[in-house]
Amino acid sequence: MEIGFIGLGSMGYPMAENLLKAGHALAIWNRSREKGEGLASQGARQAGRPADAVSADGVAITMVADDAALESVVLGPDGILEKLGPGGVHVSMSTISPALSARLAELHRARGSHYVAAPVFGRPDAAAAKMLFVLCAGPAAACERVRPALEAMGQKVFPLGEEPVHANIIKLGGNFMIMSVIEAMAEAMTLGEKHGVPREKTMEVLTQSIFPAPLFVNYGKQIAAHAYRPARFKLSLGLKDANLVLGAAARAQVPMPLAALMQGRYLAAVAKGRADLDWTAAALNVAEDAGLDPGDGH
Amino acid sequence: MEIGFIGLGSMGYPMAENLLKAGHALAIWNRSREKGEGLASQGARQAGRPADAVSADGVAITMVADDAALESVVLGPDGILEKLGPGGVHVSMSTISPALSARLAELHRARGSHYVAAPVFGRPDAAAAKMLFVLCAGPAAACERVRPALEAMGQKVFPLGEEPVHANIIKLGGNFMIMSVIEAMAEAMTLGEKHGVPREKTMEVLTQSIFPAPLFVNYGKQIAAHAYRPARFKLSLGLKDANLVLGAAARAQVPMPLAALMQGRYLAAVAKGRADLDWTAAALNVAEDAGLDPGDGH
Amino acid sequence: MEIGFIGLGSMGYPMAENLLKAGHALAIWNRSREKGEGLASQGARQAGRPADAVSADGVAITMVADDAALESVVLGPDGILEKLGPGGVHVSMSTISPALSARLAELHRARGSHYVAAPVFGRPDAAAAKMLFVLCAGPAAACERVRPALEAMGQKVFPLGEEPVHANIIKLGGNFMIMSVIEAMAEAMTLGEKHGVPREKTMEVLTQSIFPAPLFVNYGKQIAAHAYRPARFKLSLGLKDANLVLGAAARAQVPMPLAALMQGRYLAAVAKGRADLDWTAAALNVAEDAGLDPGDGH
Amino acid sequence: MEIGFIGLGSMGYPMAENLLKAGHALAIWNRSREKGEGLASQGARQAGRPADAVSADGVAITMVADDAALESVVLGPDGILEKLGPGGVHVSMSTISPALSARLAELHRARGSHYVAAPVFGRPDAAAAKMLFVLCAGPAAACERVRPALEAMGQKVFPLGEEPVHANIIKLGGNFMIMSVIEAMAEAMTLGEKHGVPREKTMEVLTQSIFPAPLFVNYGKQIAAHAYRPARFKLSLGLKDANLVLGAAARAQVPMPLAALMQGRYLAAVAKGRADLDWTAAALNVAEDAGLDPGDGH
Repeated sequence: MEIGFIGLGSMGYPMAENLLKAGHALAIWNRSREKGEGLASQGARQAGRPADAVSADGVAITMVADDAALESVVLGPDGILEKLGPGGVHVSMSTISPALSARLAELHRARGSHYVAAPVFGRPDAAAAKMLFVLCAGPAAACERVRPALEAMGQKVFPLGEEPVHANIIKLGGNFMIMSVIEAMAEAMTLGEKHGVPREKTMEVLTQSIFPAPLFVNYGKQIAAHAYRPARFKLSLGLKDANLVLGAAARAQVPMPLAALMQGRYLAAVAKGRADLDWTAAALNVAEDAGLDPGDGH
Repeated sequence: MEIGFIGLGSMGYPMAENLLKAGHALAIWNRSREKGEGLASQGARQAGRPADAVSADGVAITMVADDAALESVVLGPDGILEKLGPGGVHVSMSTISPALSARLAELHRARGSHYVAAPVFGRPDAAAAKMLFVLCAGPAAACERVRPALEAMGQKVFPLGEEPVHANIIKLGGNFMIMSVIEAMAEAMTLGEKHGVPREKTMEVLTQSIFPAPLFVNYGKQIAAHAYRPARFKLSLGLKDANLVLGAAARAQVPMPLAALMQGRYLAAVAKGRADLDWTAAALNVAEDAGLDPGDGH
Repeated sequence: MEIGFIGLGSMGYPMAENLLKAGHALAIWNRSREKGEGLASQGARQAGRPADAVSADGVAITMVADDAALESVVLGPDGILEKLGPGGVHVSMSTISPALSARLAELHRARGSHYVAAPVFGRPDAAAAKMLFVLCAGPAAACERVRPALEAMGQKVFPLGEEPVHANIIKLGGNFMIMSVIEAMAEAMTLGEKHGVPREKTMEVLTQSIFPAPLFVNYGKQIAAHAYRPARFKLSLGLKDANLVLGAAARAQVPMPLAALMQGRYLAAVAKGRADLDWTAAALNVAEDAGLDPGDGH
Repeated sequence: MEIGFIGLGSMGYPMAENLLKAGHALAIWNRSREKGEGLASQGARQAGRPADAVSADGVAITMVADDAALESVVLGPDGILEKLGPGGVHVSMSTISPALSARLAELHRARGSHYVAAPVFGRPDAAAAKMLFVLCAGPAAACERVRPALEAMGQKVFPLGEEPVHANIIKLGGNFMIMSVIEAMAEAMTLGEKHGVPREKTMEVLTQSIFPAPLFVNYGKQIAAHAYRPARFKLSLGLKDANLVLGAAARAQVPMPLAALMQGRYLAAVAKGRADLDWTAAALNVAEDAGLDPGDGH
C-alpha cells in the first residue's frame, strides 16, 4: 500500500528516498513541488495537496519544519486529518512541541485514526545514510504497522510505549543535551584559550581521554576552529528547539536553568545575524564575552 | 633512583602501588603514616616528613587533596622545595589551581629544580587499574625524565608543552565538562519524569543513540536511580573543582555561566548536607526545584 | 455616554467603582455575574454578554486575567470587536502579551475602531485608593477621548505615543524590575542570615540608607518575615508575567538572563505548590537552596 | 587625642577632611605622600609609615582599596597592628572580605586592641558632602568611643552589634543589590529599545511611578544614555565587589545566581577593556547580546 510522505526538506527528502529504495510505494507532497521531482523520477507519485497524498485507512508520514507547518498540513483545508479516517495512521517525525503532539493525538483518536510520534536523531547526512535513530510512541498496533517503514529510514527504532508525547520529550531532551555539550565545550576551550592553550589542544586531549564519543570529536572540531559554515543544523533551528524545550518545561513546571542559558545564547546569536550559521556558533558569544574577537566563523 | 611519593589517599595509594609494581623504588610520605603500611610491606620506604622522601636532584611526586595541602608539603617547614635543589623534579599530580601551579613553577625555577604539572583523569578504580589519563606539562627534559613513571600509572600520557599551567587548565576544563553533562542529564531526565517518562527510559534511549560513551552510561544510571552512595567522587570535591574552575576563569577574565550554575548546584548540595554523597547528587536539586521529592539518594 | 467595563476581578471592580464615583455611566460585564452586584446597586447596568456592555462608536474598557480571557471577550462570539465599529475605542488595561496587543490593534484598525493599551501599575489596594499609575498608548484622538476615564482610575496617566505595544512593554519592564528586586533582596537577606545577620536587620539598614523607596520597605518586610499570606499579588501571576516578559524578549531577540532566572524561581514555586502565595514567595527557594528551612511562609 | 587616618584615595581624602573640619586632630598616611598635602596644610600631621600615624591606645581609621592593601597597612612590617596595643581601636572602613574582617578582629582581640568594622555607603561626592551612611559593628565600648568620629564623616551611623563581620556582610548585600538593579534596568531598557521604546522613556515612566528613588533616577539616566565616563565608581571595583559577595556566599554556602550573573557581566566588561568605565557599563553587554551596537559609552 502506498505511503503518503509530506515534507521533502533536507531531512524528508533522503528519508523518503530510503523508503523508495526499500520498495515502498510513495505518494509525496511538498510545499514547493519541484523538490519532489527527483523522487518522482524514482517512481513516487506527486500529490497536488497533502490530503491527496493520503488514502483512507492508509499511512501518512510528516516531516516538516515546525509546529505551524505541521498544523497546516494536518489541520488546514488541504490537510490529512479528515482524509485518513478510521484505521489510518499518521506518523509524525518532525521535532515539534509535545503540546501539539498531544493535541494531534487527541484529534486523531476522535476520528478513529492513529497518531504515532516518531521523531529522529541525526542530521541530513545520517538520514541519507539510513543512520537515523528513530523514536516511536503511539498505539501499539499502529506502531507495529509502520515499523517496517521506520526501519527503512534508520539504523534503529526505539519503541517507547503508547503515549506519543513521550517520544517528543525524549527527542527534545536529547537535543537539549547536545546544546549543553556545545556550551560546555565552548566555555572549556575559551578558558583554555585565555590561558594560552590552543582550542584544538583542549579538545584533542578531552576527546582522546574522557569524551571519546563522535559527537564530542565532531562538534569539538567545529567549535575549536570556529567553523560554522555551511550549517549542518542551522542556529535558527537550535533556537526553535530551545524554545520547544522551555515550552515543554514550563508546561510541566520544570525549571531548566541550563536550557534557559542556551536559549539566551541562541537569541543573542540570532540578534547578531547568525541565524544561518551552524548551531555550534553559539560558541562565538562565549568567546566574545571573554573579550576575544573570533569573527563570525568560516 | 628512588622516587619520593607524597600523598597516599584514595588516588595516591593505588598510583604509588603501580609504581612499585613497575619496579620503581619508592620513598613515601602521608599525613597519617598508617596509610603507607601496605606499600611499606611491598618495599616502599616510609619517610618521617615530606622532605625526607626526597633526595637532592631526585624526583618527587605529589598527589594531595588541595592547594593548601600541596603548599604544606612543598613550601612548609618540612616541605620538599628546598630539598630537591638543582636538577630535581617535582611532579604535581593533584587537581589544583593554575595560580598555585604557576607559583610553584616559578619557585622551582628560581632554585634550579623543575616543576611538572601532571594532573590525571580517572577515579580511584581507574587508578588501581592503571587506566588513568595523565596530562603532562613542564620543561621538556624533566617531562622526558619522569615519563616512565607516569606511564606506569596510567593508560596514556598526553605531552602538553612547557607551560605547567596548561595541564591544569585542561584538567579543570575536563572536570567542568563532566559537571555540565551531569546537569544536562539531570535536567533532561527531570523534564521527562514530569511528562511521565521514566528516568531510566530517557537515559536508555539517549545512551543507545547519540550519547553512547561510557561516561553517559555510567553517570546516567546513577542519576536515573538517584543512587549517590557510596560516593565515587565526593560532592565536596565537585565544589572544590567548580571553585577552581571559576577562580581560573576570573583570573583570565572568562565569564563561564555554566560553571557558575554548577557552583551554585554544589553550594546548595553542601548546604543541604550532601557533601559526602557522589557529586552526581547535584541532580537532587534539579528534581527538587521541579517539585519532586527524590529523597537524599541511596 | 455609557462606558462598557469588562472584567470585575480584584483590580477591575475597584477601578469600575472609581469610574462610577467620578460620574461615568457604566455598563458592566463579568464572567460570573454576581461579582457585578455591588456595582449594579450603585447604578451600573449589568450586561448579559460582553458585546451588550458596549455601544457602537462607544468606549469599552477591558480588565481581565490574561491573553486567553481577553481574546474571549474581544474576539469570541459574544465579543466586543464587531460591536464597537467605526469610531469606537477599546481601552485594554490588562497585563497581556505585546503580541496580542499588536494583533488587536490591527483588528480594530481594520474595522475603523481604535485600540488603546492602558496597563496599570498598582495592586488592588492602590486601585481602590485611585492610586494606580496608568500607561496609555494608542491613536492620539482615542487617547484624548478616554483620558478623563483613565484619570478617574489612577493618580497619574503617562501618555506614551501612538503605538499600543509600547505601553505593554513598559508595563512588563516594570513588573520584571520588581521581580528582580525581590530576588536581589532575597539573596542579600539569605547571605546575611547565614552569616548571623537577622533578615530584618539587613533590610532595615538598606531601606534607611540607599533603598528608601516604599517598594523596598514593603516587599522587604514581607520577605524578611517570610510572610506570604494572604497574597497581594499571586505567585501564579508572577509566573504569568515572567512568561510574558520572556515571550516579548524572544519576539525581539533580547536575551534576558535575569528574567530567565525569575521564571525559574516561579516555576519552582508553582511546582512546590506555592501558586497561591504572594509572588515574593520566590524568596523561599533562595533560602532553601542555602540549606535553610523557611517553611511555606505565613 | 589624635586619630590616625590611613588611606587618602577618592573616598578617604574627603572623609579625613571632614574629620579635620569637625575639630579632630589627625595623623595621616597614604602610599603616595603627596595625596596628603592638602590635609597637611589644614593641620594634619603626615606620618612616614602607617604605624607612625597611630599611637598606643589610640584610634586608627583605615580606608584603603582592597584586602591586600588593608593587610599591608595593618599586618605589614610598618603596619598598625602591633602599635595600637591594649585599648587601641582599629576602625576599618574599606569594603573588604568578611573573611579578612573576621581575621583582623581575631588578631586585634589577641593583642587587647579592638576591631570595629565601619564600611560606608556613598561615593566620593557623598563623602565630600558628609552624606555617607556608616555601618558600625564591633565591641560596644569601642563603637561608642569612635562614634563622634563616624558621625563627623556621614549623615547617619547604623549600630550593628558586636560582630564586625555583620557590617561587612550588609555592606556587600547593599552593593550587590545596586548591581542587581543595574542589570534589571539594563534588561528592561533593552527590551524596550528593541520594541521601539526609547530607553529614556522606559526609565522616565518607571522612575515617576513605581521606582521613584534617586538611585533609580540617577543610574537610570546613565544607563539610558550609555554615559559611562567619567566613572563615579569604576567597573573594576564592581568586579571586586562581586567577587567579595561570591566569596562570602561560598563561605556560608549560599547559592546566589544573581550575584553570579553580575560577576559574569563584570568579567565580560573587563575582558572587553571597560575596567575604567563606570560600573553601570555592565549594561553595554546587555545591549550587545541583543545585537545592538551601543559603542563603549561616552
